[in-house]
Amino acid sequence: MKITCEKKELVQAIQTVLKAVPSRPQMPILSGIYIKAHQNYIELQGTDYEISIICKIKAIIETEGTIVLPGKYLYEVVRTLPGEYVEIKNNDSDNSVNIRSNSAQFNLLNMQENEFPIIEPLKGQINFNLKNDIFLNFIKKTSFACATDESRPVFTGCLMDITDKNIVMAATNMHRLALIKENINYISDNNIKIIIPAKILNEFTHIFNSEIPTDIQISCTHNKISFSYENIYVISRLIEGQFPDYNRVIPKEFKTHVNINKNEFQSALDRVSLISRSGDYNIIHFEFVDNIVRISSDNPNIGKAEETINVDIEGPGINISFNAKYIIDVLKAIDAENFIFSFNQPLTTASITQRDNKNFVYVVTPVRTKTM
Amino acid sequence: MKITCEKKELVQAIQTVLKAVPSRPQMPILSGIYIKAHQNYIELQGTDYEISIICKIKAIIETEGTIVLPGKYLYEVVRTLPGEYVEIKNNDSDNSVNIRSNSAQFNLLNMQENEFPIIEPLKGQINFNLKNDIFLNFIKKTSFACATDESRPVFTGCLMDITDKNIVMAATNMHRLALIKENINYISDNNIKIIIPAKILNEFTHIFNSEIPTDIQISCTHNKISFSYENIYVISRLIEGQFPDYNRVIPKEFKTHVNINKNEFQSALDRVSLISRSGDYNIIHFEFVDNIVRISSDNPNIGKAEETINVDIEGPGINISFNAKYIIDVLKAIDAENFIFSFNQPLTTASITQRDNKNFVYVVTPVRTKTM
Repeated sequence: MKITCEKKELVQAIQTVLKAVPSRPQMPILSGIYIKAHQNYIELQGTDYEISIICKIKAIIETEGTIVLPGKYLYEVVRTLPGEYVEIKNNDSDNSVNIRSNSAQFNLLNMQENEFPIIEPLKGQINFNLKNDIFLNFIKKTSFACATDESRPVFTGCLMDITDKNIVMAATNMHRLALIKENINYISDNNIKIIIPAKILNEFTHIFNSEIPTDIQISCTHNKISFSYENIYVISRLIEGQFPDYNRVIPKEFKTHVNINKNEFQSALDRVSLISRSGDYNIIHFEFVDNIVRISSDNPNIGKAEETINVDIEGPGINISFNAKYIIDVLKAIDAENFIFSFNQPLTTASITQRDNKNFVYVVTPVRTKTM
Repeated sequence: MKITCEKKELVQAIQTVLKAVPSRPQMPILSGIYIKAHQNYIELQGTDYEISIICKIKAIIETEGTIVLPGKYLYEVVRTLPGEYVEIKNNDSDNSVNIRSNSAQFNLLNMQENEFPIIEPLKGQINFNLKNDIFLNFIKKTSFACATDESRPVFTGCLMDITDKNIVMAATNMHRLALIKENINYISDNNIKIIIPAKILNEFTHIFNSEIPTDIQISCTHNKISFSYENIYVISRLIEGQFPDYNRVIPKEFKTHVNINKNEFQSALDRVSLISRSGDYNIIHFEFVDNIVRISSDNPNIGKAEETINVDIEGPGINISFNAKYIIDVLKAIDAENFIFSFNQPLTTASITQRDNKNFVYVVTPVRTKTM
């Protein structure tokens, strides 16, 4: 193999593929990036068997061929090269690969390319398109609500529930649920429910990030999903198992609705949680009364914090307590000036919604405290 | 105690004093910052017994008094307060301290102020002044060369050797030595040699950092040193022991002098060390010949790197190898476009100097490699 390509494009391609390269591989070959030179492009591949990524870029191919180079080194070496172009050629005699750019050259050892598990395209039964901006918004609005604890795998992923009219994405850790839906033109009769690992969805923020809305072609089998986007192709495993019925979790109505300025509330919460977060349960109390919310926390080892802000309350006042993290997390996902915090009773589920976006809902269970 | 002060000034004062507050204190009280309100200022103190810092700021004092608050929390709380001013008052009845700014208020538990080891000013026998910019340059040019390993304490500090004409600052880990000297007007007959812990000197970069050259008043006893600078007062312990005679370490002359562009050499070295640094000894080879230096490294597990750059060689060519870190470190301390790398033999000490600053010298021992 002997090729020349633009350094900038190669760095981006390596960066993309590296997201699938494990830092502690089960087998040494998985620490490698497979590179195939063919026609007028090179194709880079990386996989840890959970996620596989292919990225293609243009190159001048003098000799076709394949190599596998240690991913981490390849990235660091190419990133720091002095020139605008990079020449890569393999040397069969000593099994090395020469990487050259201006006055700098590296000879990296070629890993055994026949050991690399080459990624084959997925042929799914269910196929549809989603714009990247819609998909990234789905991820932003839900994936934070997943469990990180692996003991119940279905809670470490986001449910995608696709019918002929809607896509719903939902995530829960049993203490909170985040849900968003969108109308789509999905041309199929098959309704499907799949669970995509949140860990992989979170990587997508950095992969599917073009500013012009661009289609992602999605294809599913019963246990895998693929995403084809510009010059990038990703395959992820799906999580098997039964996701809870999210419709049953969302209360039909609330007695109290509070309209709150997001930035003011978020700043106050950040301050008050300075005291709660080193406690065992990170509990913050909210007292909604007379168009004011008094936010407070109490930690016997450190002290107390208290702050009041003006809000707009419809319905009876309420005293209620939450794990601060469950409120702080959702505020980061809200992109409106105001949000609605809705309640029934101090010990029943509350919700956070945006007035301007009825497609999003967040449901959170309060905490029982000594004073209740 | 009841005071009001500017939030911005208080945050800076806490930040300064926090550098002396240990994250894992030997005694709980040392995690606290002592605050004393007196006349028209408040004085903050922190200490871990190795270093003690006092910082004074203006305040409106309604009631004088003293409190001790947990340093880490005090910083986080005050930093995030919403207003421009902060009111602090203690409440003897429940032993708490109320911190209030606009709509936010915190009640932190007051630590036992009678347990706090209040810092007394040092009355040294040796007293002199140094401008902060000169002192910080001394630190930048030497402290990186100290040992981090505590087994031989004298090598974890910088020697300050003060005579009636000169101050010399030197640091070594026995494989390399960095030295800088400066003429001063020191009005005393006492010559002194003291060793200041490098860990503490490195904090000074963030403390003595005014842009206008400002005097630091320095005072020494046999085992302590104090620095008085603007509204800040620092006391540090000194390291006891015999520092090696640095004059004997610096070769009198060299056979080969190489004039090198610093940025070019630094970039090449950064790249070539990508390969060497995961090896056991981080060794880089330099081949100086025909006004070129070939920089290379070789790691049997990864591969080879090689780069050539143009240089200006006076004297015979040389092949020599160094621990890459020992060269990379000193390049960061050099603030000139070019530097001089000087050699005698492949296994004798080399030096790095600046043509425009004869007061600085760096001496480094090469590494013996298989090929020599």
